[in-house]
Amino acid sequence: MRVQVISSVNEASSARFHHKTAIIVDVLCATSTIVSALASGSSGIVPVETVMEARAARQEGDLLGGERFSRKIPGFDLGNSPEEYCSPAVKNRRIIFTTTNGTRAIHKSSRADYVLTGALLNATACAKAAVDLRRDVVILCAGSNDEFAVEDGLCAGLLLDRFQALAGSALELDDFGHAMLSLYCDRAQSIRETLQHGMTGKKLLKLGLRRDLESCAIIDRYNEVPRLFGDMLINA
Amino acid sequence: MRVQVISSVNEASSARFHHKTAIIVDVLCATSTIVSALASGSSGIVPVETVMEARAARQEGDLLGGERFSRKIPGFDLGNSPEEYCSPAVKNRRIIFTTTNGTRAIHKSSRADYVLTGALLNATACAKAAVDLRRDVVILCAGSNDEFAVEDGLCAGLLLDRFQALAGSALELDDFGHAMLSLYCDRAQSIRETLQHGMTGKKLLKLGLRRDLESCAIIDRYNEVPRLFGDMLINA
Repeated sequence: MRVQVISSVNEASSARFHHKTAIIVDVLCATSTIVSALASGSSGIVPVETVMEARAARQEGDLLGGERFSRKIPGFDLGNSPEEYCSPAVKNRRIIFTTTNGTRAIHKSSRADYVLTGALLNATACAKAAVDLRRDVVILCAGSNDEFAVEDGLCAGLLLDRFQALAGSALELDDFGHAMLSLYCDRAQSIRETLQHGMTGKKLLKLGLRRDLESCAIIDRYNEVPRLFGDMLINA
Repeated sequence: MRVQVISSVNEASSARFHHKTAIIVDVLCATSTIVSALASGSSGIVPVETVMEARAARQEGDLLGGERFSRKIPGFDLGNSPEEYCSPAVKNRRIIFTTTNGTRAIHKSSRADYVLTGALLNATACAKAAVDLRRDVVILCAGSNDEFAVEDGLCAGLLLDRFQALAGSALELDDFGHAMLSLYCDRAQSIRETLQHGMTGKKLLKLGLRRDLESCAIIDRYNEVPRLFGDMLINA
């Protein structure tokens, strides 16, 4: 089983996903929010790239969620904070969802055979689901402002750690994967601090969103694995 | 002191080097070879991008060095193996030098105030020299085939470790820098193995060039720090 890791959306060409399982990682906060919504009983999340698309896709009963510049979009029901989605209000509701990088990353990987989303919150379940799909894997770190984000790399490393436990010596990593596995091994006891050191983490702290950061830093809180079917992410 | 790390030549825009000290890292093998040549008494290394340029730049007494596809270029005096340059034959000779990525990376950083080249072989001396130049630093990992190479990231992490010792809490890292520092911390006791796991390391082993790999894996063998003056790298 080969696993490649891509450092940011900028680096992702759609050809790299052909015949693969893609795992999209945007720890702060898109993929953490998505898994939280499914764990709270949302019937599915439809990722779209623009605010206009989100408004156009909304049907009766749907909720609109997402952010621009780390803030809720005017007129939307929900922002991009995982805690907002841990609520009975999302139960059985479809959510149309747009964020700066996370949804862009999901669309970039549309040529993959399977698309999953991973976060620290569901890493072990996500790695297991990917192994069960029996394809080589590409982990796409969404990043921030077209650059690598350390929290996404950390989550990629955690996924690789779990793959190693599941696939053992059959696991083949690329150079960036080796580096991200080391990042995780070095920081496994300092997950929250690592998130705080990153650019996105610092921005969230400045905006007073410490709770968001902390709720995204919990490993394996959920067993849900969001998987793209058609245009909607539902529990795999 | 701010330090940014760029993952491969592909990611380097010349604007990012403005008013900075650039440290070019191509552990296998360009920057390892360059420091070995200076340590053996070469009067200077002129990095050029193409084989044609190398031939045109040669003057009486010069040596031609470099590689294409990890092999010596036909008609050249020397390849890209550091051990070849640890020889009395290079003493007081100017070397015109071209490699696939290393020399391209040096040229990319030409807008920097200062350009140094770093390798595992001279990491501590290189970090000290950069601190003395009193600029923010950009470490450019040359990479391989336009992708990140783990040995260059490892060396970037080693440089950051040395910067930390020198600059302490005044050191500010970007997200990729944090990741590379963790890579080094995790692999500090397995430098050679890390080089062997990378794509370039595997290629060198396949070509029977284990000795090259091993001679590039030695930390702080040299105190020389190649620095660009005009078009030539000489000891800073």
